[in-house]
This record gives sequence, C-alpha cells and structure tokens, in this order.
Amino acid sequence: MTRTDDLLARRRAVLGPNVPTFYEAPVEIVRGEGVWLWDSDGRRYLDCYNNVPHVGHCHPRVVEAICRQAATLNTHTRYLHEGILTYAERLVARLGEMTTLMLVCTGSEANDVALRMGQAVTGKTGMIATNATYHGNTALVSQLSTRRPPIGGYPPNIRLVPAPDTLRAPDDGTAFAAHVARAIAELEAAGHGFSSLILCPFFANEGFPALPAGFLAPTVEVVRRAGGILIADEVQPGFGRLGSHFWGHEWLGFTPDVVTMGKPMANGHPVAAVAARPQVMAAFREAFGYFNTFGGNPVSCAAALATLDVIEDEGLQQTAAEVGAHALAQLRSLRHPRIADVRGAGLFFGVEFVEPGTTTPATAFVAALVEEMRRRGILLNKIGPGGGTLKMRPPMPFSRANADHLAETLAAALAALPA
Amino acid sequence: MTRTDDLLARRRAVLGPNVPTFYEAPVEIVRGEGVWLWDSDGRRYLDCYNNVPHVGHCHPRVVEAICRQAATLNTHTRYLHEGILTYAERLVARLGEMTTLMLVCTGSEANDVALRMGQAVTGKTGMIATNATYHGNTALVSQLSTRRPPIGGYPPNIRLVPAPDTLRAPDDGTAFAAHVARAIAELEAAGHGFSSLILCPFFANEGFPALPAGFLAPTVEVVRRAGGILIADEVQPGFGRLGSHFWGHEWLGFTPDVVTMGKPMANGHPVAAVAARPQVMAAFREAFGYFNTFGGNPVSCAAALATLDVIEDEGLQQTAAEVGAHALAQLRSLRHPRIADVRGAGLFFGVEFVEPGTTTPATAFVAALVEEMRRRGILLNKIGPGGGTLKMRPPMPFSRANADHLAETLAAALAALPA
Repeated sequence: MTRTDDLLARRRAVLGPNVPTFYEAPVEIVRGEGVWLWDSDGRRYLDCYNNVPHVGHCHPRVVEAICRQAATLNTHTRYLHEGILTYAERLVARLGEMTTLMLVCTGSEANDVALRMGQAVTGKTGMIATNATYHGNTALVSQLSTRRPPIGGYPPNIRLVPAPDTLRAPDDGTAFAAHVARAIAELEAAGHGFSSLILCPFFANEGFPALPAGFLAPTVEVVRRAGGILIADEVQPGFGRLGSHFWGHEWLGFTPDVVTMGKPMANGHPVAAVAARPQVMAAFREAFGYFNTFGGNPVSCAAALATLDVIEDEGLQQTAAEVGAHALAQLRSLRHPRIADVRGAGLFFGVEFVEPGTTTPATAFVAALVEEMRRRGILLNKIGPGGGTLKMRPPMPFSRANADHLAETLAAALAALPA
Repeated sequence: MTRTDDLLARRRAVLGPNVPTFYEAPVEIVRGEGVWLWDSDGRRYLDCYNNVPHVGHCHPRVVEAICRQAATLNTHTRYLHEGILTYAERLVARLGEMTTLMLVCTGSEANDVALRMGQAVTGKTGMIATNATYHGNTALVSQLSTRRPPIGGYPPNIRLVPAPDTLRAPDDGTAFAAHVARAIAELEAAGHGFSSLILCPFFANEGFPALPAGFLAPTVEVVRRAGGILIADEVQPGFGRLGSHFWGHEWLGFTPDVVTMGKPMANGHPVAAVAARPQVMAAFREAFGYFNTFGGNPVSCAAALATLDVIEDEGLQQTAAEVGAHALAQLRSLRHPRIADVRGAGLFFGVEFVEPGTTTPATAFVAALVEEMRRRGILLNKIGPGGGTLKMRPPMPFSRANADHLAETLAAALAALPA
C-alpha cells in the first residue's frame, strides 16, 4: 500500500465517505512558502490556485502576529479589546458607506448573517442568487446552491436566476436585470416579499464571465426600486486580488449595502466578516441579537491586521494588476483549437476550453489538463459551465517569472495532450 | 472620557449597536495566563468563567503547536495531510460508536451540520430542543433559541420542550420524556416527521439542573422508538470538564448518535467538530456534500491535538473531579437566606439564589453579586431561570487554592451586599 493509499484509507475510515480531494491521485502537501508548496516526497509545486494564503503561504509577518497574540491573550468580544477596534476601523475605512463590521469565523457564517440582514431590514424573506453559485455551507446558505436538493425540498422563498455566461449568453446586463425583476415579482406574488440579492461581483463560481462596463447597473436599479438590499460576496475577489480595485464591487462598479469576506482575510486563520451600512447592521442586531464566541478574538484580529498590513506594505494590489496583466497576455499568446476565451482580472484569470467549433464545454479535456499540469508541478483547477474553464487564483506575491513559468508549462501540457 | 468610555464609543461606531459585553463597566482584558487574566490597568482577575481557554489561558504547548504549524503549512483538506487524521483518530477513540469526525470552525457550524444529519438519516425535518437552550447562531440553529422570534415567524418543524428545572419542576425523567413524546406526535401529525432531539447533556444553558441517575433513559427510548437521532451538544460539558467522565453524555448515561464539540476543543483557536456513527455521517455526506475551507486545516488540527495532549498529560479531568468536589463542598458551606441550591459536576458548578421563602429567581440580587465579585477580582456570570444561578466554569488547571479563594471571596461579597 502506498503512502497515498494509506492516507486515503485512513480518511475514509475516520472522516467518512465523499470527503472531497483534488486530483485523481491527491497530493499530500507538507510545507508552504510564498507561492510554493512541497509534497511529502519533497517535490515542489507552483501554487496557482490557493487564494486563502493571500499574502503567500506562511508569511512570516502573519505567523509572527499569530504567535505573539496567542502567547499574550485569546479571548472573546464580551470583554473590551483594542485589537478588534483597530482592525475594524482600518477595514471599514476602505468600505465607503459600509462603516460597521461584524467579525465571524467563516465565509459561510458571514453569508448566513448577511442574508438575515436582508430579512431584518426589509421584514421580508425572499432571497435571490444565481443558479451556478456557491456562497457557503450552512443550512441557510447551502440552499442557494443547486448541487443537491435539500431534505424537505427547496425552500419557496429562494429564487435562482441564470448566471451570466460569456460564450453562451452574452448580455449587457439587461437580461440579468430582467431575470432578477421576474424573480422579485414571483417572490412578491408568493407572499414572501423580496429581501436581498446576493452575488459575487466577479461571478467567480459561475466561471468569472467577461462583463461589459455597467453590467450590474440595471440590476441595481431593479433591486433598489423593490426595496431589497444588495449583498456583495467578496470572499474570492476582495482584498486587492483583481488588481485595479481593492473590492470586486468597485471593479464591477456598484455600491452594495452589505459586503461579506472570508478566505483570504487572515491568510488562512479562520476569520471572516460582514460589513454593512450602519442602519442594516442595527436592524440585524435588533432583530436577531448575535454573539460569536471565536469571532473577533484577539488572535484572529492580529492575523487579519497583519494580512492587511502586508497587502499594503508589499503593494500586493499593484502586483496583482501588473503580474495579472502580464499573465493574461502570456495566456492569450497560447494557440490551441479548443481555447475559446482567455479572461480575468488581476490575479484571478482563466482559459475557457470548448469542443472545437462549438460552445460545448471541453469537460473531459480540461479535467485531463488539470491532471497534466499537476504532473508538471503546477496546481490549478477548473470551474464554470461544464467545468470547462481553467481557474487560476494564486497567492498574491505571484511574480512575472511565475506567470511565465505557468504559461510555458501550460503550452507544453497542451502540446502533450491529445487534441 | 475614560479609556473604557472611549473603547465603548469606538465599539458602537464600528461594530454597531447591541454588541454584548459582560459587566456594568466592561473589563478590558489584555493578558492571560493559566487561570488568571489582567486588565489594562494591570489588575489581576481570577477567571472562574471562561471554558474556551480549557487548558489555561495561553498554554505554552498549545501556543507552540500553533506557531510551529502556522510557520510550516496552513491549507485545507482537499490536499492530504496527516494532521487531521492523527487528531481525528485520537478523538474518536474516545467516542465509542461515533467513529467518524468532521472538523468545522464553530460550535454553531457543528450544530448546523448535526441537525442536517438528522434530516439526512431520517428523510424528515422535525427537530426538538428545550425551551431554554442555546446551540448557536446560524439561521437554522438560532431557530432553537427563544430570545427573539425569527423574521417570517418560527418554523413549523421545530418544537421546544420545557427544560428540566431543579427547584420548580423536579422530574425523574418521566415528564421530560412525555414532553418529547408529545412534540414528536405533533411533528408527525403536522407532516414534518421527527428527525432529531438535540440537547446539552449537562443542560448548561438551562441552569445545569440537578438530574437523578437515569434521567434521560425514558427519553432515549421515546426517541429510538420514533426513529429519530440523538444529538449531544458537548460544547460546554465535553473534554473532561465534568470530572467523573470525559463527555457529558457519559455523565448523564446515554449513547447519542451524534456529538458536537466547540469552544474548549483547541483552547480558543476556532475549531469545532461533529462526531457521528458512520452511517449517520455517510447519510449526511450523501445528502448534502460538504466542504469547509478552514475546517480541519493543519494549524487548527495542531492546536486541537496539543489541547488534547495537555488534558491527558496534565491529568486535567482528574483535576476537574478533585478540585470540583472541593469547590462544591466549600460553596455548600456558605450560609445565606437566598441560597436555594448549590450544584454542579467537576469544574462546572453554581449556586442558585431565590427570593427568600419562595422559588422566585433572585434576578437582581445575582446580577449585583456578579458585579460585586468582579469588583473583588473574580470573573463569573449567571444563567438559568431568571438569571438566578451563579455560573462558574473556570479553565481546567483550577487549583484547590483557587477554589478556596473563590469561596472566601463569595462569602465576603454575600456579606457585603444588602440581604
């Protein structure tokens, strides 16, 4: 039995069935530094996928902040502590009218709260998301995903609208807004009323379709007219990843009422947050009360503050803009009959593959390409309709040399695979 | 403006209204070590309340484990890693037939999953809890709390049964079982069916009533006969706190299908878990799929493993048994006209106060007593019907000297307050 087989057997025994892993032969990662990961055989991989280690795996400033605070005090927000205030003040300074912040532990918790903010502020229960999204795994939030029908059936107060799709349904935003308007009308007719539209401003799980300027403007108008709130799930696009803007909603060009954050926020320490306009936060706090034992603890705040410091001090948003543009140019120089589109923003980019001469996703081809890239020492993955889009979203200290290495390896992998 | 006023003003501005704090004049805690906390004026407090720093504030072995792993690798369970397996194997070895484990980040996430396990395994949606409980803060789990009605009303598939109460409704378990049986019948008649009963085996939020041996036996039979599952929320009683047993369900004398864990599990690092019988875990994984980005990451597992090591190596369960018995004896020697009961197990104990000659909770008196104890350098709090019970639940390295200091200070505080 190989070591991998042994680990997989132990996982099945103690974690149960269907615990997802990446790759046909899963990788055992034992060490990380910057944009690099090492497996248990000492083999090095270029990490082109993980956004959680936002400022680089094991960044020494974040590690040091965690160690220092963990050795000093770790308690909860029912005592006063300056750590949460310093961090919250720093973060909301970047969030315009969303001047209040709640700290939780996971993006799922953040979205679970955000949806209830919509309910608290409107007194209504109807919620809208896209039909190809993922916003998390609590009972409430997982109802926005379509992968499996919930026990007891889909709740009647949720409507899923068709996601934008670069290749198959080009849209200047009019069609999307019409879908949202129809969903609102249905929710109102059914007596639920409309509370919120939640979306990732980069539509990351939908395959980050290319969107024209002003795409969301008609939707924003529809939502405002109906009295609901806009929730921007910034778990993936936030914290400078898109290069040109610090937040996905700035990149898409709209002002939400609530912003949720997670994964990259504290470089892997379990920290997430909800920022909201003060009246939205107040409505939630009035309607629900809320206390999160681990949320906003001093160690989590120290980790998040150090992460924000590194983003700023190392100019990582600027890196994302420059290296992302370079990477995109390199990928656009690739020639292959299945490449239908190369797109992205900053350090979040991808290549969409189709069956030649069609818009049918090249599902099996992309799956094989992901495996081939892993064999060649590069970790990335797939997303979008039919899993047809290679998804790359590396730690932010990604260099031009890393981008060149990625593009060269991809060219070689494409040449090696049967067309 | 005092420093406290300044911090409170900053909290209101950036965290919003109704963010709960302890005490009339909240404490700014800046440092912790073992059972001691220090405020920003350098004043030391004996911590008789916080169960999250289970093996003591800032235990060096836990801090060292976090630092070492955070500097080496922090990623997710879609790659293989031995850390989660080593920890999970160690933990389920203590959990009998619950041989599979899922790691999440908060007790709320754990209970949110556990309730869906009940739904997955039964195909039904009805859930039962007590009417004075708290199991967490997700949209689903918070529906089990009665503090505020949810927007859109209480869901029809939840029934809350009267909590046990030492003074006001003595019960050998027959009445509780009858309440549960009635709730099951109602859920079945309404078409929801019965999926799970969730309870804290110590009824910690209900005021940890004294329960006779075999209290839960008739309820277990009712639940089994109806085909539902039993969820033991071990967030408060678990990990040796009760002294005589490692788990609350062992202490109460029953075998659940699912155990949830949280707060003390990694000494404050955001780690929580759900252990389940394999067929229950498999049913959940089949029905829902589930991935938690931060859940079971290598740093969280290192923190949890170090905490478990310290519990075992320092004999903290034995400490809880011995010091807890001593503390209870000391508290039982207190004489005061409002003391109605002194009870507890291990390092989870309390004193219930009533208006003299009645069973009416001495709400205002206990509130004043909590403040008086804080002025005298001891942190504790209140719980139970009308907030009439002093609640003490210190870090586990609590010594006989600490218990003596607590009892002496409590005697002095009682003497100082108007009877």
